[in-house]
Amino acid sequence: MENMNLNKHISGQFNAELDDIRNRVLTMGGLVERQLEQSLDALAALDSELAQKVIEGDHKVNGMEVAIDEECTRIIAKRQPAASDLRLVLAISKTITDLERIGDACVKIAKAAMDKRSKNQQPLLVSIENMGRHATRTLHSTLDALARMDADVALELHKEDIKLDQEYEGIIRQLMTYMMADPRSIPEVLDVLWAARAVERVGDRCQNICEYIIYYVKGKDVRHISYEEMEKDLNF
Amino acid sequence: MENMNLNKHISGQFNAELDDIRNRVLTMGGLVERQLEQSLDALAALDSELAQKVIEGDHKVNGMEVAIDEECTRIIAKRQPAASDLRLVLAISKTITDLERIGDACVKIAKAAMDKRSKNQQPLLVSIENMGRHATRTLHSTLDALARMDADVALELHKEDIKLDQEYEGIIRQLMTYMMADPRSIPEVLDVLWAARAVERVGDRCQNICEYIIYYVKGKDVRHISYEEMEKDLNF
Repeated sequence: MENMNLNKHISGQFNAELDDIRNRVLTMGGLVERQLEQSLDALAALDSELAQKVIEGDHKVNGMEVAIDEECTRIIAKRQPAASDLRLVLAISKTITDLERIGDACVKIAKAAMDKRSKNQQPLLVSIENMGRHATRTLHSTLDALARMDADVALELHKEDIKLDQEYEGIIRQLMTYMMADPRSIPEVLDVLWAARAVERVGDRCQNICEYIIYYVKGKDVRHISYEEMEKDLNF
Repeated sequence: MENMNLNKHISGQFNAELDDIRNRVLTMGGLVERQLEQSLDALAALDSELAQKVIEGDHKVNGMEVAIDEECTRIIAKRQPAASDLRLVLAISKTITDLERIGDACVKIAKAAMDKRSKNQQPLLVSIENMGRHATRTLHSTLDALARMDADVALELHKEDIKLDQEYEGIIRQLMTYMMADPRSIPEVLDVLWAARAVERVGDRCQNICEYIIYYVKGKDVRHISYEEMEKDLNF
């Protein structure tokens, strides 16, 4: 009897620990979302003070990655989770890497916002801001799907990344015409190009997180698998 | 006595399993190294047949990532490793993600080699090939350090990435002058730029792998830490 209570107590603690890392990854996601919004605000207004704030805030994102990963390792070593508990810990450990990289993308966008040369490229910056708002919505929905561990939403979001890719292709074309029309603008247009690239990568990172959600819920690694296979094999 | 033999037997199997994933990650590394060499050969000779071979070979790299990661998860669930054994499994699980991304970089380089437009940009391709050979040597040394789990070499390699970054900056400058001198060449120069970017990312991925080697050997996560802190805290 005593033993049963002890087991219950231990499993209660364990569940609390799992809840804790779930909450912490969502807090980290919220911070990254704010970094992305602010980096885009800074780019739209060429606000170098706000941009500087984003750049300085990145160390918090980095710190959360290291702290959560350490906690994941501690839980594996101490609690020896199996089945879906283990999948949860591993999915979180991978998710934080992608969130940290989205944080790096925000720094790149903020750097473009700080670049004095960018101010000659206002029409291009508007295109990137639109694309960036699209990426922000994708990140927000991805974090929602993560909070609810909703594999169906994750699959839909994964499929929708193609729209962001198409938007990016359009911007690259637009950039080329600008450069060809005014070759002296090439260095400053390239700065804008790196920002566009960073935004496009946010979408790819969200796709990765969606794959981890599906892995947790369905118990299958879906990286490098076609949508047809996913839908056929996983009862979506 | 029987129990002791059983324990010895189990731990013998466990060691064999750890050796097996170590060997598999090195095999995967060898494959990725070959992909990188061949993609650069294809770019230097604008050999679209070889480039096609690299592109088709990427699914093998992807398959190895998924298979090794599955094995890592199985080992954690079944063997409940602790301390350095757990660090080994986690370090391998992260290493394969970076190796897979280096595989993606090879595909990007191969695509630039297939692009008919690239043939007008021979002098640029020579610069990228040189940078690519540098990246190949870095990858080779990183895999050596991984095979011997040598944290000192890993730290040296980590520091040396700055040379590859400088080489990359030089190529970007060179690309800009080409584009400014002949704006009609902009689309084809941008194709070359993506290849240069892919090579530069190979160096970043090697840095990540070096961090996992140090994590395994020293037992400390060194991401986002300065070299001074690393050397002070970790007795290098």
